[in-house]
Amino acid sequence: MQHLDRLVRALKRLPGVGPRQAERFAAYFLRASQGEVNEFITALSEVKSSVGLCPQCFAYSENDLCDICRDTDRNTAQICVVEDPQDIEAIEKTGAYKGLYHVLHGAISPLEGRGAEQVKVRELLARVQQASPRIEEIIIATDPDSEGETTALYLADLLRGQVGQITRIGYGVPLGADIDYMDEMTLGHSLKGRTKI
Amino acid sequence: MQHLDRLVRALKRLPGVGPRQAERFAAYFLRASQGEVNEFITALSEVKSSVGLCPQCFAYSENDLCDICRDTDRNTAQICVVEDPQDIEAIEKTGAYKGLYHVLHGAISPLEGRGAEQVKVRELLARVQQASPRIEEIIIATDPDSEGETTALYLADLLRGQVGQITRIGYGVPLGADIDYMDEMTLGHSLKGRTKI
Repeated sequence: MQHLDRLVRALKRLPGVGPRQAERFAAYFLRASQGEVNEFITALSEVKSSVGLCPQCFAYSENDLCDICRDTDRNTAQICVVEDPQDIEAIEKTGAYKGLYHVLHGAISPLEGRGAEQVKVRELLARVQQASPRIEEIIIATDPDSEGETTALYLADLLRGQVGQITRIGYGVPLGADIDYMDEMTLGHSLKGRTKI
Repeated sequence: MQHLDRLVRALKRLPGVGPRQAERFAAYFLRASQGEVNEFITALSEVKSSVGLCPQCFAYSENDLCDICRDTDRNTAQICVVEDPQDIEAIEKTGAYKGLYHVLHGAISPLEGRGAEQVKVRELLARVQQASPRIEEIIIATDPDSEGETTALYLADLLRGQVGQITRIGYGVPLGADIDYMDEMTLGHSLKGRTKI
């Protein structure tokens, strides 16, 4: 069953998916109608061809600038820095934040040999330096683990004096957790209770 | 982000996948190389075009008869009846069974209005009646839940007198569990300790 094995292998690459779950997914596709499978393939192909990164904040975007960067109702003097694009949706759901974002696409990790140049730090610095009027606040919302903390401290050092203030979300987010799995209440509190660093 | 939303909706249809996991899967595809995504699409398309059902046992097969039905080393006088194609792999891993299979593709469920004609029961009866020499044993390995029990009793009534004996795997499989999530030891024991019904 080489074709089926190949699909199971491809499905095992999905994050957090083990052999049994990959087999269940493959069984779903085998049972599904040809129309459903075609819809899936079309959605996947279109996402790869149409979704890129916003040139300003590096969130996923289907246009040039993303929806949030283009939204004239947002507070452009506030930038919330996150590790991953899906963190944005988690924060948006709280309704507690009306500024812009900046996606690092990872965190600084000396142990894994990932330095500031491997994430979108230079782009954040350029964005802050080019901003007119000056950015009032950078809210650092990296994950509360050692890489996220390292990144937060690095950014605080780098940006100090270049923006009004630098804050870090803190209140309510338990250590070791993942920002984008957090419930809305906790994340909302952590935004309101942010502390200056 | 209509294209991304569409992919997330398609991913949510996978069994057991919620909104957050679907978003994580979509993020994986966005990060993956075009080559990886193409490989995935090819595997999926080929599975749909090349994998069918074995005309004898209704397992998934890429040829006419499946590998097990074509294997001349198997005991053709024994048929193990399972609900789903993935149950076969779970039983094969135990190494405790060398007969053939019959996949019902579901279980009889009066509550959901699924009768014997919606699963491959008629095909099993025809297979038993046409078998020469006579089938010595039918091992019923439906899931140990109410639908699986109903199906087992229905099959026992239907096939009594037409085969040497009808047995039901039992020993070791906890009630409410799913055959294809079972560990190999438990399944191996349940095959060895099967009881006559």
